[in-house]
Amino acid sequence: MNDDIIAAIATSRLEAAISIIRLSGKDVIAFVQSFFSGRIIDKKTQTLTYGYIMDGDEKVDECLVSIYRGKHTFTGEEMVEINCHGGVFITRKVFNLCIRKGARLAQRGEFSKRAFLNGRIDLSQAEAISDMVTANNDEAAKLALRGIQGNISHFIKDLKEDLIQIITQIEVNIDYPEYDDVEELTAEKLLPRSVSLREKMDDIIQRSRHVSLMKDGISTVIVGKPNVGKSSLLNALLDEEKAIVTDIAGTTRDIVEGTIRLDSVVLNMIDTAGIHETKETIEKMGVEKSLSLIDKADLVLVVVDGSSPLDEEDQRILEKTKDTNRIIIINKADLGCVVDLEGIQISAKEMKIDALTNYIKDSFDFSSMNGQDAQVVANERQLSLLMKASKSLDAAISAMRLSVPVDLIVEDLYDSWNALKEILGEQAKEDLLDELFSRFCVGK
Amino acid sequence: MNDDIIAAIATSRLEAAISIIRLSGKDVIAFVQSFFSGRIIDKKTQTLTYGYIMDGDEKVDECLVSIYRGKHTFTGEEMVEINCHGGVFITRKVFNLCIRKGARLAQRGEFSKRAFLNGRIDLSQAEAISDMVTANNDEAAKLALRGIQGNISHFIKDLKEDLIQIITQIEVNIDYPEYDDVEELTAEKLLPRSVSLREKMDDIIQRSRHVSLMKDGISTVIVGKPNVGKSSLLNALLDEEKAIVTDIAGTTRDIVEGTIRLDSVVLNMIDTAGIHETKETIEKMGVEKSLSLIDKADLVLVVVDGSSPLDEEDQRILEKTKDTNRIIIINKADLGCVVDLEGIQISAKEMKIDALTNYIKDSFDFSSMNGQDAQVVANERQLSLLMKASKSLDAAISAMRLSVPVDLIVEDLYDSWNALKEILGEQAKEDLLDELFSRFCVGK
Repeated sequence: MNDDIIAAIATSRLEAAISIIRLSGKDVIAFVQSFFSGRIIDKKTQTLTYGYIMDGDEKVDECLVSIYRGKHTFTGEEMVEINCHGGVFITRKVFNLCIRKGARLAQRGEFSKRAFLNGRIDLSQAEAISDMVTANNDEAAKLALRGIQGNISHFIKDLKEDLIQIITQIEVNIDYPEYDDVEELTAEKLLPRSVSLREKMDDIIQRSRHVSLMKDGISTVIVGKPNVGKSSLLNALLDEEKAIVTDIAGTTRDIVEGTIRLDSVVLNMIDTAGIHETKETIEKMGVEKSLSLIDKADLVLVVVDGSSPLDEEDQRILEKTKDTNRIIIINKADLGCVVDLEGIQISAKEMKIDALTNYIKDSFDFSSMNGQDAQVVANERQLSLLMKASKSLDAAISAMRLSVPVDLIVEDLYDSWNALKEILGEQAKEDLLDELFSRFCVGK
Repeated sequence: MNDDIIAAIATSRLEAAISIIRLSGKDVIAFVQSFFSGRIIDKKTQTLTYGYIMDGDEKVDECLVSIYRGKHTFTGEEMVEINCHGGVFITRKVFNLCIRKGARLAQRGEFSKRAFLNGRIDLSQAEAISDMVTANNDEAAKLALRGIQGNISHFIKDLKEDLIQIITQIEVNIDYPEYDDVEELTAEKLLPRSVSLREKMDDIIQRSRHVSLMKDGISTVIVGKPNVGKSSLLNALLDEEKAIVTDIAGTTRDIVEGTIRLDSVVLNMIDTAGIHETKETIEKMGVEKSLSLIDKADLVLVVVDGSSPLDEEDQRILEKTKDTNRIIIINKADLGCVVDLEGIQISAKEMKIDALTNYIKDSFDFSSMNGQDAQVVANERQLSLLMKASKSLDAAISAMRLSVPVDLIVEDLYDSWNALKEILGEQAKEDLLDELFSRFCVGK
């Protein structure tokens, strides 16, 4: 395993008060001591020492140097952090000196990769660290922190434990048949356990999908025939937002035109042609156009005019959206409701949309998730592996129901088990690791 | 004096591996302890402690917290630095928590201002810290480090000491006349000492001006009649540069079109209309236009064609530039030199310009400056105060020569002394301090 000394600027490359240059590797304290005037070679772990970074006799910068000894460091190796002045030039100069003295430029994510390879963290924790750096809202940050703490590792290990017990039962029975009748074994032991385990997995999958909406924002489209109050609703939602739409919240889908934040819930409004500039555009957009967008939406807000009976156009829109994740909104509630339809009554024009916003917040709020509820995976990679695990388990369950010989069933169970292992990186191949860690920022 | 707890994000606000939130003030360790899970309250100074930043029962981020006790900290107060994950959102979240818990948002430069007010650094050192962060080349960084180490404070104190000895001599003589003859006192003691001191000051002033060219770059214009090889010279200089022109080197004058770096010497080429795109522009630029720029230049490169006799246009250019800091360049040396003029012979077309570049490097190199030579002030504020000190001393010298009564001379000497004190901030008024420190970055 590589334990050569790697170095990276761990803070961002803009002028600031302080920059940190992070180093890790075998004997890195002695290495830094060779060009640092303060005495660190015999200092305790987790101490800060004042001094100058020296290029021969020349002082380069006044710094504070932190040292980390032993195997309980971030990377699991000896580490040093140089806190120097945060100028772009001086940081680069100190960093270049580290390289000139013999450190190697760290690759993206190489510190985390070493932490992983040294068993300090598993793959889900490594991914959580990266998620924390890119988190742009509270839910994402909370989720990342849970990952860092090993929450994912913990419940995936539980799933693995359940699975291995099922497998063991079969393996033992093959060698020392307790049950003469395979159907009895399956019915009494394997099937109930397997079904229960698959339900656990599917719960996590469903919850994770839900949470990913929270993290990335909910693609939302407003549909309804002309003049039911779509633009008034949009105006009222924008007014509700209160806080200015943050420029931190980068959106990944080009189609998103703007975001509305309702407490911790982020609605990514799609194709409303720049909601902040031309709020009227949505009103002008034809019904066909907006219906064509419902496939791309996580949430469809269907608006009808509650003050006049539903017409054919309304019915058509309701029919078209019936299989979507929709909220039916009965607008113009102030004018008296004449429609017979289950939905949320609002008056967008009078800015009375609390019933709607509270409903949205409640539907998507997961801030109170605790214990079992907090079991969610963090990203597409983990989700697809968990789905693979569930699918293989499901194949085993089907086989059990068809009374396929248990030694054949075991194949599917092992597939499921391997998928779970891969979530934690226990089966990760080198090229997968390279690919994964290259998405990290330098210095992590 | 204020010692309430101030907080700032001391790293820059872009995604990175690590961010630092810096806090300073009375009992700041106990303050941070109230929302940090690791035990820091009884830890030694300059130690790092692992734990979670807590918002009540909720973990916000996993952090390393450094503590600094006693009066030997950067600010002279108790300090804490929170190293958290370097995401934009999470850093902001941890920072907001510090503010919510009762810390006050630090003003720009407020950490340095406290260091100054607590006598940890003088004003020249505080300015040097700011200079280090904005330094964009090696000379500027070296100069800033000397300032941080107290180089300026040191020689300004020496000048003050010399001056106070002169003043003391006068004050003593007024009360206990050693010399009955004032002219004798002046001639024997005061005048030689004063002249010698003014020379010291003027040396520093001259050297500082020279060095400021090094730091900020040398505004350079190339002049010459058409077809003497101005654009070939520019091409050759650009080729000489080797290193790619850095985008870090911000230039403060709009007129600068590009920079050429010759080792540590930076030439800011003025009004060559984007030298990197259209190198031919300089050739097209009329003589009148380029002559109009010589007032803005620190260095004028006058190019003549050495292979043909000087004509009236050449003579006019030489006459016009005779009072500038110019280098006369005799180009086309490869074709044989027929002009009788002192200058540096080059062949721009054949890229033979070593004689010129070495001359420029030697003229402006101060990297070898040591001891006395290293006595330079750092900025316009310090320079103008030093010039004021020199001018007042000069007035005193003139008065001495006119045998003005010594008790009147003393006034000018005190003016000089006060100017020196102001360089170190010993006489700084509150509004001057506010103005000065507001130029710092947050977290310094």
